[in-house]
Amino acid sequence: MAQKVLVTGGGGYIGSHCVVELIEAGFCPVVIDNFSNAVQGERDVPESLQRIEKILDTSIEFYELDLLDRTGLEKLFKQHSFSAVMHFAGLKAVGESVEQPLRYYRVNLTATMNLLEVMQTHGVRNLVFSSSATVYGDPQRLPIDEQHPVGGCTNPYGKTKYFIEEMIMDQCKAEKVLIVIDFTLCAVALSSLTQVAIGRRKHLNVFGNDYDTIDGTGVRDYIHVVDLAKGHIAALKKLKDNCGCKVYNLGTGTGYSVLQMVKAMEKASGKEIMYLIAPRRGGDVASCYADPLLAEKELGWKADFDLERMCEDLWRWQSKNPTGFTKNSPFSI
Amino acid sequence: MAQKVLVTGGGGYIGSHCVVELIEAGFCPVVIDNFSNAVQGERDVPESLQRIEKILDTSIEFYELDLLDRTGLEKLFKQHSFSAVMHFAGLKAVGESVEQPLRYYRVNLTATMNLLEVMQTHGVRNLVFSSSATVYGDPQRLPIDEQHPVGGCTNPYGKTKYFIEEMIMDQCKAEKVLIVIDFTLCAVALSSLTQVAIGRRKHLNVFGNDYDTIDGTGVRDYIHVVDLAKGHIAALKKLKDNCGCKVYNLGTGTGYSVLQMVKAMEKASGKEIMYLIAPRRGGDVASCYADPLLAEKELGWKADFDLERMCEDLWRWQSKNPTGFTKNSPFSI
Repeated sequence: MAQKVLVTGGGGYIGSHCVVELIEAGFCPVVIDNFSNAVQGERDVPESLQRIEKILDTSIEFYELDLLDRTGLEKLFKQHSFSAVMHFAGLKAVGESVEQPLRYYRVNLTATMNLLEVMQTHGVRNLVFSSSATVYGDPQRLPIDEQHPVGGCTNPYGKTKYFIEEMIMDQCKAEKVLIVIDFTLCAVALSSLTQVAIGRRKHLNVFGNDYDTIDGTGVRDYIHVVDLAKGHIAALKKLKDNCGCKVYNLGTGTGYSVLQMVKAMEKASGKEIMYLIAPRRGGDVASCYADPLLAEKELGWKADFDLERMCEDLWRWQSKNPTGFTKNSPFSI
Repeated sequence: MAQKVLVTGGGGYIGSHCVVELIEAGFCPVVIDNFSNAVQGERDVPESLQRIEKILDTSIEFYELDLLDRTGLEKLFKQHSFSAVMHFAGLKAVGESVEQPLRYYRVNLTATMNLLEVMQTHGVRNLVFSSSATVYGDPQRLPIDEQHPVGGCTNPYGKTKYFIEEMIMDQCKAEKVLIVIDFTLCAVALSSLTQVAIGRRKHLNVFGNDYDTIDGTGVRDYIHVVDLAKGHIAALKKLKDNCGCKVYNLGTGTGYSVLQMVKAMEKASGKEIMYLIAPRRGGDVASCYADPLLAEKELGWKADFDLERMCEDLWRWQSKNPTGFTKNSPFSI
């Protein structure tokens, strides 16, 4: 029988792509989501999952559940025998986290504490946690490998990711929970680009063109969401090796500047993308890209899709879904 | 009318000494404690507070309340109009935190999140949080001033203090809550010494004698608890200046080695203190002492009591209270 894997936040951007890859890899995903990114009134299976069900001609077990609902979570773990958990749920808007820090700490930290406690109670010891490159702060060296110091996060969102990593690592030491931490680098940063290409936004704001980079604009590790999802599944499979608590950076290893991305998206879409140079934003770093060699060596994973394909796929999706799934979908942030 | 100040963990070692200083400074302390350090069955006003009531011939408003009890906390804030909160409550055993990390994160973080949320709801904007020198990790320079980098904590207890500081600072930025963070350096580290002097322990374990210090043993900033309590009151008074979020290191500025403390305690007690050299413990640093100049300049506070007086007072207390208040009192850790 297929192993049941709980996917928290499985209705979201990376989560739903992981659900696809889980099904294709022979796992049985059980998805929970609290609709916190959904439009008012939408209280059904997320559209992302409905589409997956249609495309793969299958049904996905889905529960509307908030990780802050400890009782509901206990009930879920009593109903199902999970072999592992993939944890994507959480608030994720950097700017909002600065305005409402307590809400971010409460939601992201308490959700994870509830999850870890209920996992411990039910003897579920396998976890893949989706973290963020923001935990590395301002990079001290590039590319960023897994030995790079963590901390120095400049906003509460980033701090919650960092604090959660620390919690998980401490829990791992004490309870020998097997954990893999993935780092998702700028997975959804391309959304503004496609919005301009499709005409929903007039122009792109480029924050700073005086960084010490190839053309002065910020350099990031843009990765295809399918690659990212496959990396998470590779991490999940690694858990069977009794690997302890390990961190893997999931990135392409190549950094592209904002202006390079503009050109690539212009090519893929055949549209001109207008941009305005705006001042630097506080907390933004000049360059950030992963050293993905450890993931390749130990997980047998590397990003397959190149920049061209990434832009083509994003353009295809955005032109077919001009308003995204919902008003707060990752493509309209 | 005297300003009401909520003291969380006010039955504990530093908390109860602060209650004394609050009363003497004309404030009206309202104390909560959850008895988490109390012996089984003890469900009355803590002995520490009963003694204060007797000595000062006054009565102290005390509630048995756990900060995890959100409803009870809401009720308390509805009953009272607090001008400020002094937050001492929390689990504090380093070794235990390594064994039970989730419990430490749950209790210390959730307690503080509850407190900050309820303070926000009720418009209470003044907080003095008692942190720990452990947030500085392995000191990069000595003495440690308030600009010293934080993080690099080696145990979950220390991380909870560090995370709470970050939460409070973020909350302060967003809500203009006025906050002072105090750093208590090794306030209760002398307990083992007095236990040996009084004969309750056979010998003192000295962990490591090959550090780069005056005699190879660890150097710490030992401070009289009354000085520490007075420093907290000075911080509380500072809040009226609309000072924003500030950090003050409360220490003497002088470091003494373990063997120097042994000699000082031998002198104060007239007893020989046997000690054994044990291997270094993981996470211990060679030297750690504060630069207290900022506190002197901005709070008008400095430690008054010298090493001799500190040892004399500790010896007097311990010889009159050989088993401490309770089995888990700070003097029997």
